[in-house]
Amino acid sequence: MKDLIYLDHAATTAVSPAVMSEMIPYFNEKFGNPSSIYEFASNNKEAINRARISVADLINANPEDIYFTAGGSEADNWAVKETVRALRKKGNHVITTQIEHHAVLNTCKFLEREGVEVTYLPVDENGMISIADLESAITDRTILISVMFANNEIGTIQPVKEIGKIAEKHNIIFHTDAVQAYGQIPIDVKAMKIDMLSASGHKFNGPKGIGFLYIKEGIEIGSFIHGGHQEKGKRAGTENVPGIIGMGKAAELAMENMEERIKKETELRDRLIDRVLSEIPYVRLNGHRFKRLPNNANFSFQFVEGESLLIMLDMNGICASSGSACTSGSLDPSHVLKAMGLPDDICHGSLRLTLGEENTKEEIDYTIDCLKDIVEKLRSMSPLYEDMILKRKQV
Amino acid sequence: MKDLIYLDHAATTAVSPAVMSEMIPYFNEKFGNPSSIYEFASNNKEAINRARISVADLINANPEDIYFTAGGSEADNWAVKETVRALRKKGNHVITTQIEHHAVLNTCKFLEREGVEVTYLPVDENGMISIADLESAITDRTILISVMFANNEIGTIQPVKEIGKIAEKHNIIFHTDAVQAYGQIPIDVKAMKIDMLSASGHKFNGPKGIGFLYIKEGIEIGSFIHGGHQEKGKRAGTENVPGIIGMGKAAELAMENMEERIKKETELRDRLIDRVLSEIPYVRLNGHRFKRLPNNANFSFQFVEGESLLIMLDMNGICASSGSACTSGSLDPSHVLKAMGLPDDICHGSLRLTLGEENTKEEIDYTIDCLKDIVEKLRSMSPLYEDMILKRKQV
Repeated sequence: MKDLIYLDHAATTAVSPAVMSEMIPYFNEKFGNPSSIYEFASNNKEAINRARISVADLINANPEDIYFTAGGSEADNWAVKETVRALRKKGNHVITTQIEHHAVLNTCKFLEREGVEVTYLPVDENGMISIADLESAITDRTILISVMFANNEIGTIQPVKEIGKIAEKHNIIFHTDAVQAYGQIPIDVKAMKIDMLSASGHKFNGPKGIGFLYIKEGIEIGSFIHGGHQEKGKRAGTENVPGIIGMGKAAELAMENMEERIKKETELRDRLIDRVLSEIPYVRLNGHRFKRLPNNANFSFQFVEGESLLIMLDMNGICASSGSACTSGSLDPSHVLKAMGLPDDICHGSLRLTLGEENTKEEIDYTIDCLKDIVEKLRSMSPLYEDMILKRKQV
Repeated sequence: MKDLIYLDHAATTAVSPAVMSEMIPYFNEKFGNPSSIYEFASNNKEAINRARISVADLINANPEDIYFTAGGSEADNWAVKETVRALRKKGNHVITTQIEHHAVLNTCKFLEREGVEVTYLPVDENGMISIADLESAITDRTILISVMFANNEIGTIQPVKEIGKIAEKHNIIFHTDAVQAYGQIPIDVKAMKIDMLSASGHKFNGPKGIGFLYIKEGIEIGSFIHGGHQEKGKRAGTENVPGIIGMGKAAELAMENMEERIKKETELRDRLIDRVLSEIPYVRLNGHRFKRLPNNANFSFQFVEGESLLIMLDMNGICASSGSACTSGSLDPSHVLKAMGLPDDICHGSLRLTLGEENTKEEIDYTIDCLKDIVEKLRSMSPLYEDMILKRKQV
């Protein structure tokens, strides 16, 4: 990673050194299966439960309501599919949004093919859902509201507390995909009336391949992975001990430095947004100007192809993405930007820069300088841009 | 692990040093998301595909038919549930065995509650299914045969090639849970006509939290985890890069040293079995004497409680288990031993010792000596044993 400027923290993060040190002994020294009864292995059960407490503390959850999974996608699939199965006698209507991560969106599309009715709430030009839309979508057959905490592309933070209140009032389960928010901003599942919450270790300096689903006690939901008795019989499979220990440590660190990190990232992000908007013409900030993740900036550059932009940034040692990592490489315009009403050609010129605590003001300034050059260069090769400039001159 | 004799390799194994060295850079140096397009991250996609080749080579599979999962349980759930869903128009009958791992067994029980018809084939006193039973269980509604390659408790290896032939003849999909066999004994998915195969990294000196499902090209099966486009759109979620790299290296090592390891383990296992059977009275070997995993020995000691045995072995620094790790701690007798016709009281006195390549003759001899003492001591406290001895004397 020497000489690279990494601005794709929403795609994934490096495992932090303190997390590494905690994890490593569990690979080849304390490697026992936590289900075994001899002391060498059963100690790992206690280590797992200490990690469960750290993970729970960060969102004011009860530790016994945390169920470890292989990541955010499994947690989302579990929450949505198994709620629908458990409550099919009560109803078969799910409410979600047009801008969910594909782990929720494609799960809902799958469920539609299985006969479930799904409402995809629209969003405004900032990517926010409307509470009035949500309330009017509720029917007596609605069993689940699944709305993401913060969007992975544009960083917009949804009015989670209001959604929780409405879900509670109508006695509907409220799930939130908090993969981008967990460890980044304060979350309180009790105050926010969240019934289920998904998160993923590698988004906050923990390892890949580990995540969790918070399931509030009393929520009726079956297993997604059947088998052994692990996780109180709710999620089978030998525990990923190093992964769990690593995510626990990452949660602990995130809790310790959250305030400071938010302050630092917000300053850098605002510098990035303000300079780009003022120094580069024909550019749009995607997502809410203030109700957004502290580390997220997302722009659309008119008359520019996002992919060319990324390649040229890469050539300058800058790691960035056009939208979510999961859809990079796809030529389809972002479903999130489309839902916000952006025309296809503007969606195509989008760029997501997501910061981490190690980024510096110098890196941000260097990135902005590169961006200015690259955008100018790409536009100079664009016939559409030439036309536009020509027309302006003629007027 | 100093001073411990680890004889529970079927529960889990230590990550080998060579695997560790391969994995570690992927946590915090080469940590990029393989879906990102900049070079730093997209290199990881190539690394993953190299691991895919190693994993495939070990079972003579095409690499593009390997789909990484979070472990064996996810792979089993995927194979069984999604075959049933994909083929529901063709039929709804599944054939499996009474001695499957709970990842298959509890999945089948779940499917029964959903209206699927399941036949659980019985086994003989050695834990072998009968090919005649299998063939006569097939109906024109049968869509899946799921029979484990080798049993996790008793080590018995099923007649996989014959099962594959029958499945092919009847045009039924054949899945095998090879979690205990993969990396331990030769497997050839093509010669054995295996359509789907599950395996898990941590059973052969790879890390926990990673596994795979082999799905032969052309097999009709949907996704189990919906979301991003990873694994050719079949298994969503950011790839567990270090886990995949680690499992790939472990597969490579397993391939290199398989012949030698089988020879060494078989010798130690046979010494263990022969000495225990000849030196301890009232003991039974569970599982087939020869068609068994090279590293597995499973005994039932009459007039002994398995749990007391384990605790006393632990006090002597020996790590062992009563049956599968997944059911240790449960007071129910093993479903595998029950299926073989053993009475409950004999099931309760069972002990599984599973070897690894680092075990030595000295460790085995020490274990046998401890076992002799412990069994004698426990029996001396058993009223049933006293009664039996008394009656013998009276005769």
